[in-house]
Amino acid sequence: MSNDKPIGVFDSGVGGLTVAREIMRQIPGERIVYFGDTARVPYGNKSQATIIRFARQIVRFLETHEVKAIAVACNTASAYALEVLEREIDIPIIGVVKPGARTAVRTTKNGRVGVIATEATIHSGMYTRYIHSIDPDVAVFSKACPLFVPLVEEGMIHDFVTEEIANRYLEELKRQHIDTLILGCTHYPLLRSLLGRCMGSEVELVNPAYETAVSLRELLREKDLLAEAPPEGRMPAHSFYVSDGADKFEVFANSILPYELRKTQIVDIETY
Amino acid sequence: MSNDKPIGVFDSGVGGLTVAREIMRQIPGERIVYFGDTARVPYGNKSQATIIRFARQIVRFLETHEVKAIAVACNTASAYALEVLEREIDIPIIGVVKPGARTAVRTTKNGRVGVIATEATIHSGMYTRYIHSIDPDVAVFSKACPLFVPLVEEGMIHDFVTEEIANRYLEELKRQHIDTLILGCTHYPLLRSLLGRCMGSEVELVNPAYETAVSLRELLREKDLLAEAPPEGRMPAHSFYVSDGADKFEVFANSILPYELRKTQIVDIETY
Repeated sequence: MSNDKPIGVFDSGVGGLTVAREIMRQIPGERIVYFGDTARVPYGNKSQATIIRFARQIVRFLETHEVKAIAVACNTASAYALEVLEREIDIPIIGVVKPGARTAVRTTKNGRVGVIATEATIHSGMYTRYIHSIDPDVAVFSKACPLFVPLVEEGMIHDFVTEEIANRYLEELKRQHIDTLILGCTHYPLLRSLLGRCMGSEVELVNPAYETAVSLRELLREKDLLAEAPPEGRMPAHSFYVSDGADKFEVFANSILPYELRKTQIVDIETY
Repeated sequence: MSNDKPIGVFDSGVGGLTVAREIMRQIPGERIVYFGDTARVPYGNKSQATIIRFARQIVRFLETHEVKAIAVACNTASAYALEVLEREIDIPIIGVVKPGARTAVRTTKNGRVGVIATEATIHSGMYTRYIHSIDPDVAVFSKACPLFVPLVEEGMIHDFVTEEIANRYLEELKRQHIDTLILGCTHYPLLRSLLGRCMGSEVELVNPAYETAVSLRELLREKDLLAEAPPEGRMPAHSFYVSDGADKFEVFANSILPYELRKTQIVDIETY
């Protein structure tokens, strides 16, 4: 396995770009092949069987690009499909749930952790399970927040309506006196300041995108798969694929990535 | 073509059940084969090429049930795919956009009509085009309302947050002094009372689901395809298929259909 092969990163849509961005920052030598399943987005309200079928197709697509490792940048796919994929493929694969869970356990002082995510991620119980596998004494309180993704996509990031809805969703978690809150969906870090205000300054917010890039770097180092750091001012030739709406994807990508995205290609993912 | 063959009805998810319900009410002898594409819902934020590909797969599935006619119960699919499908298949096919447009033209007194729908339906311009094909002098004002579907699915039908968002979306239409408003997405009739309050009693709300069932009955009569009316107290054996989440679908279906839905079957629609 050669070190200059790319890393595959996939998500149900644009949200996983927050993970890609962290990888670019933390391991700038790595070339990324990104796939966003914009034709079938969102995953958060779908069943495990369907998520596994979608994830398998995407892994087969990424394998045609000879990726040396895969980061599942979608919480729902990490929660529902990662364990199955790990058994089926030979290259290292990492999700966002485990790194987020690990950091939450390290962060909490009072042993009370909250998780907010899509319906599917919460329903999977994966955050709770991972947290308990590290420390069974941590109490985990979960809440699905289905309106956050559409509100972010409507650009209502600083809006009293979003704040009102956040207050309703988070009321119960506040009553449980959590001191750590996992933002268990890739869109949620975009609501960070509003969520921070809502929870109060004594609650730490954990962003799994950041932690996933840290874990990926460790994993690549351990397997001796790290790429060379690029020469000053040069960047690897990342590539971006979606299953629908390349133009819309590029607008969002260019609003959050540290460089201008040139060409997004459409993939008929159902044929993989 | 035999009259006792079923009618195919399809939608991106559960919303098209409002059309199925109207068909059951208005032509109670017709047997329905319903397909909801719950694995790939929503359609409203996707491209025309993708919607056409999805719709073709669904039509091929419905053809395996030997349907005598098809009702496209999804505004987005009607707007983007109906004209293509009409050219490709031999059986009659009807969408929700034309009947809704026709009724709006009949309803307006001041010649000013509003349309609210998903981004894709508004972007297609189909409501405006159909209205102008009937009466080029009618002024059409359109507004995409992407948050209405997730708000309805969160059950926030009577909620001041939904009312606040509706007031923002509809502000411009109110300033244009429309007297008729097309509810151009199958979820929106569930917000009828809130939207009526927001627009005021002088604005008529048009529900394309109702009008589609009227048009379908006319079409079947014209082609001599109407089924016999069933004996008193008997109902045809409707069948329901989805691409994901049969249980969740049944809960919604049983909340709006006039009878208890027994068995929803899962279809792997990508293989059609």
